[in-house]
Amino acid sequence: MKPAALLVDIFGTTVDWWTGVAGQVTAIAAERGVQLDGGEFAGAWRERYLPSMAEVREGRRPWAYLDTLHRESLDKLLDGFGLADRFDEADRQRLVRAWHRLPAWPDAAEGLRRLRVRYPVVALSNGGFALLINLLKAEDLHFDAIISAELAHSYKPDARVYHRAAGLLDLPPEQLLMVACHGWDLDGARAAGLRTAFVERPAEKGPDQDADRPADTPTDLACASFTELAGALGC
Amino acid sequence: MKPAALLVDIFGTTVDWWTGVAGQVTAIAAERGVQLDGGEFAGAWRERYLPSMAEVREGRRPWAYLDTLHRESLDKLLDGFGLADRFDEADRQRLVRAWHRLPAWPDAAEGLRRLRVRYPVVALSNGGFALLINLLKAEDLHFDAIISAELAHSYKPDARVYHRAAGLLDLPPEQLLMVACHGWDLDGARAAGLRTAFVERPAEKGPDQDADRPADTPTDLACASFTELAGALGC
Repeated sequence: MKPAALLVDIFGTTVDWWTGVAGQVTAIAAERGVQLDGGEFAGAWRERYLPSMAEVREGRRPWAYLDTLHRESLDKLLDGFGLADRFDEADRQRLVRAWHRLPAWPDAAEGLRRLRVRYPVVALSNGGFALLINLLKAEDLHFDAIISAELAHSYKPDARVYHRAAGLLDLPPEQLLMVACHGWDLDGARAAGLRTAFVERPAEKGPDQDADRPADTPTDLACASFTELAGALGC
Repeated sequence: MKPAALLVDIFGTTVDWWTGVAGQVTAIAAERGVQLDGGEFAGAWRERYLPSMAEVREGRRPWAYLDTLHRESLDKLLDGFGLADRFDEADRQRLVRAWHRLPAWPDAAEGLRRLRVRYPVVALSNGGFALLINLLKAEDLHFDAIISAELAHSYKPDARVYHRAAGLLDLPPEQLLMVACHGWDLDGARAAGLRTAFVERPAEKGPDQDADRPADTPTDLACASFTELAGALGC
């Protein structure tokens, strides 16, 4: 397999959203004197991620930026936890910004560096452009370009997002390799005509929750890290 | 001045289009046994650049990709030079691709590296997404993101292009600094509410043609290189 370019997912695949969000939630809660399991909260917040995007993808609401969806989910979640009166507007804005600052998985920078020697490597994320710039810059992760689903006014796994990326790269979908740790993303990419590589992230949802497993999703490649992927692609 | 992010022009400002295109035109002409002054041809080709984009900007034709405009200009130019029968379809495609592979100015990589330590530094070019990825990757030039005018379906100096960039970066125009070597680009950015920095490239159009001069354009800053710009911005 020699794709013309790689598209790489960010949340979970390149960066560890669970550890990042859990830590920031715990810290902000502590400042407010609130006892809160940051990991449980992060997991519950992320649970609302796919359903909130599905409303946009399926046309049940107009385009809304990921930060907006995160904020709406947060407000509902704080209500559900009985904590609505403990976090003010500024706290909520800080919490939403937690998704702009997440730690990279240890193999990400080195794997991306090796992959970029032979391939154009492009971030393809449901995160917004501004969010992605903040996130990748803070972790010193280098891509040849960033493509946000916002450029298609939809969200993965909508085929329009993968096809928008192919159009911008001026390449047919079958010459692109989508790299992700989620079955739903890779299924969407495959349905849109792309090739797919699973990078397994067993700790993606924290220590107590099962992550997606490569055995459950048909893909062209399955690896345990970006450095293993680099090796598999001859880098 | 402490902008929230920098937008950097590519053709002429970051890379030396004249030397790059002249050299490739000369080489392809030699293969075909055609005597041709590559520098003169490159200059004449670029002369058609602003008028061809103006047709799109002003709505006189629907959106057309920069490669398409370059190709149309090339066909007219070869006719004008009486060389239409000397370059076949494959040659013409190679010539259009010459704009995808241009040498960086010597100060570009180091200047960008220094600027990126303190600022998000984003390419903002009339070149297409695919062209920009090819160009920047070949020269090992690193940006935090690439924004092509194609995302606004127009071309600089249309205000929509600068405002599209501001929207994607989630920043107000006045917090952005547009960096370019062309008065028309900086005038457009200023009219759209951005701050502006002139980086002078006296050899931009080759040794025999005058380049734009900072004295002719009101800007917030004027420098002779990206490294000088980095110094001026405290990097």
